[in-house]
Amino acid sequence: MDEVKVIEIKKSVFADNDKDAADLRQELKAKGLYLLNLMSAPGSGKTTTLIRTINLLKDKLRIAVMEADIDSDVDAVKIKDATGIPSIQLHTGGMCHLDAEMTRQGLANVPQDGLDLVILENVGNLVCPAEFDTGAVCNAMILSVPEGDDKPLKYPLMFSVCDVVVINKIDVMPYFDFNLDKCKEYIRMRNPKAQVIPISATTGEGVQAFADWLLEQVNNWKQ
Amino acid sequence: MDEVKVIEIKKSVFADNDKDAADLRQELKAKGLYLLNLMSAPGSGKTTTLIRTINLLKDKLRIAVMEADIDSDVDAVKIKDATGIPSIQLHTGGMCHLDAEMTRQGLANVPQDGLDLVILENVGNLVCPAEFDTGAVCNAMILSVPEGDDKPLKYPLMFSVCDVVVINKIDVMPYFDFNLDKCKEYIRMRNPKAQVIPISATTGEGVQAFADWLLEQVNNWKQ
Repeated sequence: MDEVKVIEIKKSVFADNDKDAADLRQELKAKGLYLLNLMSAPGSGKTTTLIRTINLLKDKLRIAVMEADIDSDVDAVKIKDATGIPSIQLHTGGMCHLDAEMTRQGLANVPQDGLDLVILENVGNLVCPAEFDTGAVCNAMILSVPEGDDKPLKYPLMFSVCDVVVINKIDVMPYFDFNLDKCKEYIRMRNPKAQVIPISATTGEGVQAFADWLLEQVNNWKQ
Repeated sequence: MDEVKVIEIKKSVFADNDKDAADLRQELKAKGLYLLNLMSAPGSGKTTTLIRTINLLKDKLRIAVMEADIDSDVDAVKIKDATGIPSIQLHTGGMCHLDAEMTRQGLANVPQDGLDLVILENVGNLVCPAEFDTGAVCNAMILSVPEGDDKPLKYPLMFSVCDVVVINKIDVMPYFDFNLDKCKEYIRMRNPKAQVIPISATTGEGVQAFADWLLEQVNNWKQ
């Protein structure tokens, strides 16, 4: 396995995260660089989904990934090995989320020349990451079938801040009590505009739809 | 469905949570009341596991449940409907964890006369709840098979503060890339003393072992 760069993120000193996030977004706009903030509960398949998606997009876009975790570098190594794109690991030192300043610390370690898209894989957590604007152009989340269709009822903020909800592990739907229509209805209660894209990162089903959606977003942002 | 009591928990004012938690534990010891703090990621099957376990124990112990969630009362209603035992819902008002004072606010709403065991179902989150001692006699956690066997590497604190790790959804093991031996090894890296109990809350397999373990803990505590 390849070695990856591991960055120890320091706690932010900025009091006004919303302002800092808006500034970061403006800087990204000026560079034509799209930042996607991908959130989910632990084990919903963020890394596997990213590998599939990046392999569909890497001939069309120049992509880098920042993997945030409390500890370990398993995800950054997986991404690098499976896609060949630049991937760095951010260690949050026990912190449950990333804010704009912490995201900036990560970005400073990503070579940005000619880059189109940076994907931030946030800490696996349905609560805290939703409370902090990272400066990303777009928030995306993954809900996996085994977690249950009632999650939008229990974690309202996460669903309301995300522009797209990817429903992963649809290949195991027969083994779980998961009602996709009911889940979509709950998601729309939280966020009527959210896109819902069912996929299986294991079989690849539906991943093209997510990749197409992301490509369109990135191209619109660059204009 | 039955109605359940919903308590809006207020943010704690106590500066020293560790002291407050130790005090609460001492009060519980004096009453012979065992408090179990059950943690996990969202959707790992805490509620279903509790229903199975309570139905195996409710003739031997008097049990009550406190269900903590950011929003909704679906879990408290499920527990009450499926077991008939007292169940209340704690709303954390967006907070990602419970501390000892918040747990105390919940306990004040549970009728304790003759009670042996209170189970606190913490907010679904593998990060923050591990950082706050609730005053519970024992921390337990559930890791479900679809989340992956690498979770002890990524969420070290959660695994190190738990006396028992229940591995749930073993019925779907054939559909996921989950190595139980490797997972046990990772858990022991974090906590050499942790009990590991594989179960399926859906089929009931292994739940008796967890119930037996819990019954023994409660009986020892009362002595």
